[in-house]
Amino acid sequence: MTRTIGVALLGLGNVGGGVVKLLEDNAAAIAARLGATLEVRAIAVRDVEKANRLVEVDRGLLTSDIERTVGRADVDIVCELIGGTGLAKRATLAAIAAGKHVVTANKALLAEHGAEIFAAAEQTGVDVYYEAAVCGGVPVIRVLREGLASDRVEALHGIVNGTSNYILTTMSATRRAFAEILRDAQALGYAEADPTLDVGGGDAAHKLAILVNLCFGTNVDVAAIPTDGIDIVEPIDLDYADKWGYVIKPLVIARAHGDPATGPIEARVHPALIPASWLLADVGGAKNALYVQSYALGPSLYYGAGAGMLPTAMSVVSDMIEIGRNIFARVAGAPRPTRPRPAQPRALVALDDIRTRYYLRFGVHDKPGVLGQLMTILGAHQISVAQVVQDGRAIDAVGGGEPVWVVVLTHEAREGDVRAALAEIDKLEIMRQPARLIRIAGDA
Amino acid sequence: MTRTIGVALLGLGNVGGGVVKLLEDNAAAIAARLGATLEVRAIAVRDVEKANRLVEVDRGLLTSDIERTVGRADVDIVCELIGGTGLAKRATLAAIAAGKHVVTANKALLAEHGAEIFAAAEQTGVDVYYEAAVCGGVPVIRVLREGLASDRVEALHGIVNGTSNYILTTMSATRRAFAEILRDAQALGYAEADPTLDVGGGDAAHKLAILVNLCFGTNVDVAAIPTDGIDIVEPIDLDYADKWGYVIKPLVIARAHGDPATGPIEARVHPALIPASWLLADVGGAKNALYVQSYALGPSLYYGAGAGMLPTAMSVVSDMIEIGRNIFARVAGAPRPTRPRPAQPRALVALDDIRTRYYLRFGVHDKPGVLGQLMTILGAHQISVAQVVQDGRAIDAVGGGEPVWVVVLTHEAREGDVRAALAEIDKLEIMRQPARLIRIAGDA
Repeated sequence: MTRTIGVALLGLGNVGGGVVKLLEDNAAAIAARLGATLEVRAIAVRDVEKANRLVEVDRGLLTSDIERTVGRADVDIVCELIGGTGLAKRATLAAIAAGKHVVTANKALLAEHGAEIFAAAEQTGVDVYYEAAVCGGVPVIRVLREGLASDRVEALHGIVNGTSNYILTTMSATRRAFAEILRDAQALGYAEADPTLDVGGGDAAHKLAILVNLCFGTNVDVAAIPTDGIDIVEPIDLDYADKWGYVIKPLVIARAHGDPATGPIEARVHPALIPASWLLADVGGAKNALYVQSYALGPSLYYGAGAGMLPTAMSVVSDMIEIGRNIFARVAGAPRPTRPRPAQPRALVALDDIRTRYYLRFGVHDKPGVLGQLMTILGAHQISVAQVVQDGRAIDAVGGGEPVWVVVLTHEAREGDVRAALAEIDKLEIMRQPARLIRIAGDA
Repeated sequence: MTRTIGVALLGLGNVGGGVVKLLEDNAAAIAARLGATLEVRAIAVRDVEKANRLVEVDRGLLTSDIERTVGRADVDIVCELIGGTGLAKRATLAAIAAGKHVVTANKALLAEHGAEIFAAAEQTGVDVYYEAAVCGGVPVIRVLREGLASDRVEALHGIVNGTSNYILTTMSATRRAFAEILRDAQALGYAEADPTLDVGGGDAAHKLAILVNLCFGTNVDVAAIPTDGIDIVEPIDLDYADKWGYVIKPLVIARAHGDPATGPIEARVHPALIPASWLLADVGGAKNALYVQSYALGPSLYYGAGAGMLPTAMSVVSDMIEIGRNIFARVAGAPRPTRPRPAQPRALVALDDIRTRYYLRFGVHDKPGVLGQLMTILGAHQISVAQVVQDGRAIDAVGGGEPVWVVVLTHEAREGDVRAALAEIDKLEIMRQPARLIRIAGDA
């Protein structure tokens, strides 16, 4: 065993620390599988003097000079663990320009600048691997690219943001309010100080864009993906969902319409009511899962830790091993079909044209005729009602004038119609607050 | 697009038919991903004249001459879909000797003769891929070999035999007896005319041997794997399991003990009580799943169709695509770390030394002192009882002399101790039939 692959880490936070730890802990197994050792030659950090790092590293490896780090002659693979799309993008492109292979866990970077990065890699002849960018340690990128290489993905449903799943799982178990659980999660370090990207759905949208690129061969504008955060869910929604045999999960959904190669792509990010009997309903806590519907295999599911120091590092180091194998096989960076090909432009289905089932909650003043008004407007917009309850009681048991909830499950309807109906309903005098809408997913 | 990879199929049954169909149905997507077409140049069948094949094929492709087929100059990949270990082994070795890459779905062949086959492939410099051999269309081989390349598997729990899972799922839903459900499954084509290999656990043991080789780098003698069939489960066991929050699933289990690289391996095949809250408990019908516990990633699960024409063919054709990529990258058959390396000998944990929890069911004549006798013997063998019921009633409500069931859940115990206790108990006069034992798996 004399061969080594030289690695530079950009960033030594949670994931970077995990990479250092995993390379040490599993050194023997990694060496056996690669037929070589992965040796960290440099670690670029913002502050070389910082104390109390997650892992102990040789001080001599630390540097704040990213530019020099990515250009080192003894580095084969640059591992971008900075995050964000500013410095991370510049560093990644600099590494590629210097002829280094790149491993990144950065979903925002790939979702927003993937085309540019992969084009640069193609031009310079280097590999860019990104298994950790979606579902953390669960190897969904390899599954979709290699395992299902002969198949055709028809639809995806995924739980890809651990923080959102943790909060909704905890809300479901305790019925405490979103904001309260978020505060606790932040105190425990399960949620970022600025949780917007997680709970607002932005992080999930980045991951969905990567999945859509991989499965449907097209780039989507992340900003164009309809995205709802989990803050639209209130504890009372979990009560109603439960009553009807549903749970509420933070989903990403993508589906191909029309021609498999060129048809439009439906993509959306939102919490959804899903049947409690569905496997995805059991994906609790901060765990991630991807449920794939493909032509030949049918449904399949991939489940595990979507974040965390060692799980994420596991994917990063597995990517390094694969690049190492490519290097030894002299195919690293060579143009070959595993490389993402230039994406074909495919239209995104407009939000108004999405068809699904809906959970609608109306806060109304309970007066005679309220239900009639609601149902009339829904019906006028071609929205067929599957079930309705008023304040949890059977609807014919309702009387008086107190404020109550009317909750409706619809059959499949067009989103544009539903939104038009809700806009009309929201203007009614009986309404105490704007109507709430949560989409339903999974088999009826 | 002028490049083609020549393929020969040995066998045109369910999977072979699926391969032909998938190559047609997904031709465009496959060509795009491989940068070439996969072209079937010959199909070896037992009877060229056979009518009513599952798929229509050009009569000119059919031949009964396997030897000539595997040696054809225009064939790059031989796809062994014959099954069994006789003709399939000779054909596979002949293909390798002729310098052809091999794709096989044959778990018996690899479990029993894998060492010989991989050694031959190593010598001739060809690839042998076998994704379809375990969990059908679910790409667990790739996940373990590539996705978790940097990780270290600690334990596996799998549902890898669809027929057994289908029968136990149906038993659980209907409480009908094993033999009756098997008969129906055979009539519907869900079970083979000779179901021994499926329901007896032999097929699962083959798959487990392959998984053990992959995860723990050792060859196990399939005959040495402790194997119970699902026919040890009776409807009443499902009742008791249900009462305590368990379901019964046909599992394969493997676990590494001691030193990660050289310690003994525990491997076993049997139906097990598992907590109803575990994800594996929701793997119903004929579906398969593999639940992996690894050092860095922690728990992860891979779920989908473990059999069937198109799901199995999907894995076979994905393997062909990967070999095709290897061929174009000029690394096909080259010695490289992805190839299974010569396995290290590691001891198999003896059945007597397995430690787990147990479900024990005793058919006894209900006489005063019966429970005392049973508990005394269990205690004398260091078996600690967690729960006990007699005939479903609370044990202190029991009287009279009618025949009743005493059912016990133990804490973790050593299998040798349990077997010794049961041997002693079976000699008691109070026993109406031999004691029944089903192991418990999953977290308490």
